[in-house]
Amino acid sequence: MKITTDHLSDLNEKQEVSYTSELQFLRNKFSNRKLSLDEIIKKLADFQVAIPSWALGAGGTRFGRFSYGGEPASLEQKLDDIGILHALTKSAGAVSLHIPWDSPGDVKAVKEIAQSHGIVFDAMNSNTFQNQPDAKKTYKFGSLSNTDKAVREYAIQHNHEVIKIGKELGSKSLTVWLADGANFPGQNNFQTALQNTEDSLNQIYGKLPQDWKMFIEYKPYEPNFYSTVIQDWGTSFMLANACGERAYTLVDLGHHLPNTNIEQIVATLMLKGKLGGFHFNDSKYGDDDVTVGSIKPYALFLIFNELVYGMENNPQNPGLSWMIDASHNTKDPLEDLIQSLEAILIAYAQALLVDQKALKEAQAENDVVRCQEILQDAYRTDVRPLLKAAREKSGAAIDPLQAYRHLGIRKNLIKERGTKTKATGL
Amino acid sequence: MKITTDHLSDLNEKQEVSYTSELQFLRNKFSNRKLSLDEIIKKLADFQVAIPSWALGAGGTRFGRFSYGGEPASLEQKLDDIGILHALTKSAGAVSLHIPWDSPGDVKAVKEIAQSHGIVFDAMNSNTFQNQPDAKKTYKFGSLSNTDKAVREYAIQHNHEVIKIGKELGSKSLTVWLADGANFPGQNNFQTALQNTEDSLNQIYGKLPQDWKMFIEYKPYEPNFYSTVIQDWGTSFMLANACGERAYTLVDLGHHLPNTNIEQIVATLMLKGKLGGFHFNDSKYGDDDVTVGSIKPYALFLIFNELVYGMENNPQNPGLSWMIDASHNTKDPLEDLIQSLEAILIAYAQALLVDQKALKEAQAENDVVRCQEILQDAYRTDVRPLLKAAREKSGAAIDPLQAYRHLGIRKNLIKERGTKTKATGL
Amino acid sequence: MKITTDHLSDLNEKQEVSYTSELQFLRNKFSNRKLSLDEIIKKLADFQVAIPSWALGAGGTRFGRFSYGGEPASLEQKLDDIGILHALTKSAGAVSLHIPWDSPGDVKAVKEIAQSHGIVFDAMNSNTFQNQPDAKKTYKFGSLSNTDKAVREYAIQHNHEVIKIGKELGSKSLTVWLADGANFPGQNNFQTALQNTEDSLNQIYGKLPQDWKMFIEYKPYEPNFYSTVIQDWGTSFMLANACGERAYTLVDLGHHLPNTNIEQIVATLMLKGKLGGFHFNDSKYGDDDVTVGSIKPYALFLIFNELVYGMENNPQNPGLSWMIDASHNTKDPLEDLIQSLEAILIAYAQALLVDQKALKEAQAENDVVRCQEILQDAYRTDVRPLLKAAREKSGAAIDPLQAYRHLGIRKNLIKERGTKTKATGL
Amino acid sequence: MKITTDHLSDLNEKQEVSYTSELQFLRNKFSNRKLSLDEIIKKLADFQVAIPSWALGAGGTRFGRFSYGGEPASLEQKLDDIGILHALTKSAGAVSLHIPWDSPGDVKAVKEIAQSHGIVFDAMNSNTFQNQPDAKKTYKFGSLSNTDKAVREYAIQHNHEVIKIGKELGSKSLTVWLADGANFPGQNNFQTALQNTEDSLNQIYGKLPQDWKMFIEYKPYEPNFYSTVIQDWGTSFMLANACGERAYTLVDLGHHLPNTNIEQIVATLMLKGKLGGFHFNDSKYGDDDVTVGSIKPYALFLIFNELVYGMENNPQNPGLSWMIDASHNTKDPLEDLIQSLEAILIAYAQALLVDQKALKEAQAENDVVRCQEILQDAYRTDVRPLLKAAREKSGAAIDPLQAYRHLGIRKNLIKERGTKTKATGL
Repeated sequence: MKITTDHLSDLNEKQEVSYTSELQFLRNKFSNRKLSLDEIIKKLADFQVAIPSWALGAGGTRFGRFSYGGEPASLEQKLDDIGILHALTKSAGAVSLHIPWDSPGDVKAVKEIAQSHGIVFDAMNSNTFQNQPDAKKTYKFGSLSNTDKAVREYAIQHNHEVIKIGKELGSKSLTVWLADGANFPGQNNFQTALQNTEDSLNQIYGKLPQDWKMFIEYKPYEPNFYSTVIQDWGTSFMLANACGERAYTLVDLGHHLPNTNIEQIVATLMLKGKLGGFHFNDSKYGDDDVTVGSIKPYALFLIFNELVYGMENNPQNPGLSWMIDASHNTKDPLEDLIQSLEAILIAYAQALLVDQKALKEAQAENDVVRCQEILQDAYRTDVRPLLKAAREKSGAAIDPLQAYRHLGIRKNLIKERGTKTKATGL
Repeated sequence: MKITTDHLSDLNEKQEVSYTSELQFLRNKFSNRKLSLDEIIKKLADFQVAIPSWALGAGGTRFGRFSYGGEPASLEQKLDDIGILHALTKSAGAVSLHIPWDSPGDVKAVKEIAQSHGIVFDAMNSNTFQNQPDAKKTYKFGSLSNTDKAVREYAIQHNHEVIKIGKELGSKSLTVWLADGANFPGQNNFQTALQNTEDSLNQIYGKLPQDWKMFIEYKPYEPNFYSTVIQDWGTSFMLANACGERAYTLVDLGHHLPNTNIEQIVATLMLKGKLGGFHFNDSKYGDDDVTVGSIKPYALFLIFNELVYGMENNPQNPGLSWMIDASHNTKDPLEDLIQSLEAILIAYAQALLVDQKALKEAQAENDVVRCQEILQDAYRTDVRPLLKAAREKSGAAIDPLQAYRHLGIRKNLIKERGTKTKATGL
Repeated sequence: MKITTDHLSDLNEKQEVSYTSELQFLRNKFSNRKLSLDEIIKKLADFQVAIPSWALGAGGTRFGRFSYGGEPASLEQKLDDIGILHALTKSAGAVSLHIPWDSPGDVKAVKEIAQSHGIVFDAMNSNTFQNQPDAKKTYKFGSLSNTDKAVREYAIQHNHEVIKIGKELGSKSLTVWLADGANFPGQNNFQTALQNTEDSLNQIYGKLPQDWKMFIEYKPYEPNFYSTVIQDWGTSFMLANACGERAYTLVDLGHHLPNTNIEQIVATLMLKGKLGGFHFNDSKYGDDDVTVGSIKPYALFLIFNELVYGMENNPQNPGLSWMIDASHNTKDPLEDLIQSLEAILIAYAQALLVDQKALKEAQAENDVVRCQEILQDAYRTDVRPLLKAAREKSGAAIDPLQAYRHLGIRKNLIKERGTKTKATGL
Repeated sequence: MKITTDHLSDLNEKQEVSYTSELQFLRNKFSNRKLSLDEIIKKLADFQVAIPSWALGAGGTRFGRFSYGGEPASLEQKLDDIGILHALTKSAGAVSLHIPWDSPGDVKAVKEIAQSHGIVFDAMNSNTFQNQPDAKKTYKFGSLSNTDKAVREYAIQHNHEVIKIGKELGSKSLTVWLADGANFPGQNNFQTALQNTEDSLNQIYGKLPQDWKMFIEYKPYEPNFYSTVIQDWGTSFMLANACGERAYTLVDLGHHLPNTNIEQIVATLMLKGKLGGFHFNDSKYGDDDVTVGSIKPYALFLIFNELVYGMENNPQNPGLSWMIDASHNTKDPLEDLIQSLEAILIAYAQALLVDQKALKEAQAENDVVRCQEILQDAYRTDVRPLLKAAREKSGAAIDPLQAYRHLGIRKNLIKERGTKTKATGL
């Protein structure tokens, strides 16, 4: 099914009345600050987050998985789902493909479908943490870090292949998430594993097109439970430096030890011009991959505060590649993504409201109380009218979740696809 | 110095204009729900949080302490500080005394000062984690759990003494925070330590007046770094049950292991009618004791959501004893407390806005997405106009922090007391 | 394949020489303490740990699974594998069945196979965290805690069914691990969920045979990532008390928040006579389920120190049900279990060596240094000769891992079963 | 009091008999491996750990401190205490001075005392986390990262002063532990703070003598509870690279977030030639600073396994500066240090026993089970006879703790110094 402007205009009309007064209220509130709400609204309307091709079906845990009806059974159907999401929100205009889960058979056809939805191809994701049915080598004991050179080459080759597919699709970046590590002390020689990884990444980087970027993800644990080769931002940063200028660190919110100050990592990487990509999700315990903003929305705001600061003050850092990397075990995947997009834009809007000039002054005076007041004043503001204005501006549904339900989209998908399809992914 | 209505009326007048339109905006917004904002405003105005007598001076860490000017040098001055706080906020109408740090010399005089500020005496706190200069027994190896009966009796006696002082002051409860534990495996016999603690608590409880309550606090670690006798809510709950009907568990937000779901503990204790008291603060790493709501405001809201639910649905649970238990290492203590009170009332107001009926329905339908929407809709609302209305209603400053600064209160305190005084406490 | 005494006697003969001198060395070392090494050896020989029926195949994570050759394809083959393990170690004389993964088709035949291996049926495990292909109700939103009474009854009914099967097999206990919880704030009403769970457990308990015990497991998170109904020992203990005398708490080492002092929980539960069962594994980050003793062997020793103390001093607590609950993602499952059994017996032996009398004295004198010395002296002792003696005494292989490899057991299993079988389980 | 060889020879004679047979036992055990126990004994005898000048008195927490009798009241007495420790163990032949807590008044005299005890001056420690009574600038809001240039220069100047004192004493390194950070979001601009820190460190480095090294310590939190400028090894490593060749990262075991894989950090830093120093202690919750090896001895072994590997395979990394950085809240500080030294040497000895050749082979074959067996075989060996041999070889007490108690050293110290002295430190 395809969402058209007709679908949305009626719904939007009903919303308009109330949100217009809400927006006016905000305009009055901020009238004494040199702050253009229209500029903020424009930034919100322009913000685009890639949807990973594996996020359209139900996720699961090692204890099992509960299917969701109407899951997309093919890459084409996945693009259709993102198309729906993008029509409703105008914030999801990109897809991040995972190879081989979503290898495009007919590249031209896939590109056309994407184009018809206004979707571009963001970072390509390789997979060297699972064995495919036809695998000639096993990644059981690692891929880019493997002690066996043949396995390393097999994994490098796969990454080269992913770049090739990406080039055909018009992508401009490669994300390497390396699950390599050990379940037990002694299993790996840390130094050898790191050295092998550096060498392998260098070889992948060697075939990276000149206008591409490579993102190196880090994660402290899972699926390995004793050690992970690229365990933290420091290791990723070191490897990115070893590869070259177009290699960057990628931050996934869920990939940190308990209590990590992630916003500080963001600030450091942007200062050094090495933050390349960002994966959104939320978590309470580990890499829980739950809906963005559902557990720690203030932390998300603090991170956005650093991202906004960096985007405004760090020309040395390139534009960022944004992606949602969540898993939907008990929710309708599309509804979950709508909630995630909403949380991202709320945090972004709040961060854009921060009075940076006043903050700088308060910091210079060590007026800690006032520093906190400035951040919390932005955070406590109800910024949802700004999102509504941005969505109306860009032709999206003013209230995407309400529109999704009102239009009976899931029901339609189930009608089209049945209840037994299973999307590739985790 | 004493804040009078005159001090505040001018300031409030200037605030009134803007907040009235903000409030009207909220009234419009919620007009379609059967929700009385006036009732919420009344609840906010009625909410009183005790200030501990040790929170009026600068706090420190084991690495040192940076003094703050104008700290109160006596219990009387501490009451004056709380008086200022209460005048500005009308939310701090109680003090929680710590004995012996703040033993009242002249009980009558102390009561009169408190009364003049409209302050009542909330829970009394005993101290068996430090040796006083004139101590006849040492708590180095524990107090209520000590292997030496004489030490246990000394600690029990101290608690009896605290009850006696509390009775004279008009307090109605005793809080026992037990630091007892071990720094090293083997140091304690866990079973003996627990048994001794149960016996000692029973003896304290034995002298508890009939109209008093006893609160048993728990904490996983610090100042002991291997084990703590009352390490979690389960142990506290077990001990409270062993003591009797008037013994309750006290929850301090900072006293939990990483990632603990505190709101669930709150719900369980209220269901069982055993939640007695609540200590507010916030933390990122351990028992950091930083300003309430400064790190995890959404978690605070979720906790308040359970507290509000419990207050409405659990008649088996008594009214709660609320206290701020934070430490102000780099902020003006009074400003910090104003910020903490603000954060508490914001979370309370948000929780009061939750549409409980809709939530119940969504839960019954397992509509997880809608459940989240209902909570987040309340949380994302800017409830500060409700706080302003509540404060105006009760004769407080509409914007207490601004008033505090405008009136130059700290400057006055420094003038009166100098820069070298040091308040008792941590 | 079946291991016979002939298989082992040759291998043992070669081992005997060296271990006899090692044992003599220990005898000399401890000659000055009133400590019977023979008694310790006997206790080690008698110690039996149940093997869960799901631990004989390769485990996996949500990111995938790497198969192991020769996995058992049926319950019968699983019993054969445990038979091998028991023949080699004489410590694995029990199986813990998971229903419906390992429902016995022909009960009589299954009992005979078990008997032929000297294996008894330990605790039965129910499964209400997955939907079976023929399920009439879904556990997606909980089982015993579900808001829908029909689902709760379906889950209760399943537990009754598991009891029935267990009775036929000669089991004497039921383990209930409840995955119920929520992925998002608001999804559950905590109080309703807890109340429903208590009611459901009571109904299960109602059909528990008089000579059976019921074990209630707890876990803070996973597969749910916001809350779990039975999140900690305190909740399990409360529920066990609500059920009755034959309901107990079960401790699984991996089911705790970071830094939890588990040994203290063990001590508390044994003091209260409510520790029923124990699941062994190890972990660094979460419920990693890696080989026992592979990450924190000293913590395991400290836990055994409390278990030994409880077994000697707490007649109010019944005999414990021991089980290994680990997952073998990258190891031969049988080798992994051999290593786990070794680690368990080492910790047990070390704990048996602790000079309890001296410890008690040192504790009474608050001689913290000496307390630590006493524990560490036992821990630092190389107790492996005691294990060898126990194994020889009971007719096992003196060095089970060496025997396993020497006898080429995995190779034989692959020959018999092929490389494509997949054992039921996680 | 001064320990002489006479004091020890009698005690040692009694020990000799038993330990000689124990050693012989080990020799037999390892006779089939090409492993020189004598070489290991020599390495153990040569291993020297610096004692910080602040570790000779009782430590405390923010909740208070319990004094210990006979604490050293001056630097001279501290050196005497280390002298005792070194005489008993021959492993504590260095002191690490903290300025200004232990500024030497008369440098020449202090050097002579140290020399008389066979003690050299290891790394110098500066202090910019506390205000000294005569401080002209306040470090309340940071030192090297402060927004105020004058404060930064004051702190830089202090570090230059510390270098100057160190040069006079014969030290060859400076340790910078920076407590700078923030208690609240917004308080600091992360990028400015980091940039200021880099500049300040560069200026300190600029005055570093050519034969000196500079160690940059990291720590995630405490005394600041929201952020710390040098929060992790990645930041320290980045800063060390920015300073130059003689700047290194220093690892303190307690300065990590929960569950961090520290041994991997060690391996990475040694591979890159940037591990400069190592602070020993242990912890269960945070930076608990308890006795080395008292909580996680296996983790300590795994770390030593990497250190030994690095010392043998990484010529690019310089010799390491070892120090104990623990706090003795409830133990006799000297006894605690004896226990720490014992734990360090045990872990070192176990690591030296690891069959590196076999490990490498098993790793190449991905024989995970065998890798674990190889490490655990070394770890499970009772290596205490090797320590005894090393101590006898170097003229120490074979059993230092027994000697310490037998000689009544604490009693003597109390007699000399009384029970009221308080050593400078935390």
